Amino acid sequence: MGMPIELNTKIVTKGEETRMQDNSFELVKDGYRLYPIEIPIEVCKTVDGEVSGTALIDAITWTGKQTLLSYRLVSLNSTN
Amino acid sequence: MGMPIELNTKIVTKGEETRMQDNSFELVKDGYRLYPIEIPIEVCKTVDGEVSGTALIDAITWTGKQTLLSYRLVSLNSTN
Amino acid sequence: MGMPIELNTKIVTKGEETRMQDNSFELVKDGYRLYPIEIPIEVCKTVDGEVSGTALIDAITWTGKQTLLSYRLVSLNSTN
Amino acid sequence: MGMPIELNTKIVTKGEETRMQDNSFELVKDGYRLYPIEIPIEVCKTVDGEVSGTALIDAITWTGKQTLLSYRLVSLNSTN
Repeated sequence: MGMPIELNTKIVTKGEETRMQDNSFELVKDGYRLYPIEIPIEVCKTVDGEVSGTALIDAITWTGKQTLLSYRLVSLNSTN
Repeated sequence: MGMPIELNTKIVTKGEETRMQDNSFELVKDGYRLYPIEIPIEVCKTVDGEVSGTALIDAITWTGKQTLLSYRLVSLNSTN
Repeated sequence: MGMPIELNTKIVTKGEETRMQDNSFELVKDGYRLYPIEIPIEVCKTVDGEVSGTALIDAITWTGKQTLLSYRLVSLNSTN
Repeated sequence: MGMPIELNTKIVTKGEETRMQDNSFELVKDGYRLYPIEIPIEVCKTVDGEVSGTALIDAITWTGKQTLLSYRLVSLNSTN
């Protein structure tokens, strides 16, 4: 009767992110997910897709079986 | 250059919780802390103190080197 | 494509533990599970069963979709 | 009185890895560290150094305030 968590090492947006302002985004993911916060992390559109940029996560909220991420894109992959 | 997390198995309030309504409370702790969510967890006033009750955590937010807990007390220790 | 982990706050043996010597035991659990190490943790025979004692986990190994726990019982519940 | 863990998203060897055979290595790191297991992870020689390859972690053991990693290099960065 433990608590399931998913350890994630990159942000996979599936195009579902919401731009809050400038380079700040919010993204809701199903389940409780653990991401490194305040550490550069790759952003991809799909699990197997190429890296579209690098972000810093500013806040993570777990509630209602979902994870809310607030992050800032700090660099974009020029090939995109 | 990883991300430090503290795994916690009980809520230690140090009397710093804020009652939001009825049996709902919020508590801010320093650092990024991992608690089991939606699973009964013991609440104590001090690390070594006796258990004052049992709670269910409804939400955890990590931001600004702090962890914000929202929890409901579901039972109180009658000896308190 | 993250890594699923289960956060556990007690050891549920289901009677499958192996006594190594004296009060030292090993237990294999399915999946990757996170337990607090070197911190007193309750031991139960079943998820909903009463606490049979308190242990200290000395080692956790994750491999092959399983978690191997090495722990020492430090106190037994006298009612058992 | 929680348990400190460090969430890691890449393997930083500092040249301290031990080759077990072929492309299999072992590495001991201080403290209890969480890495994604069985998921491609970047290997670097230093925290800020360039990526030297990609590995799959096969086993992680926590004991005695140290983390033992067993991993296989699955690709090497050709620029090294």
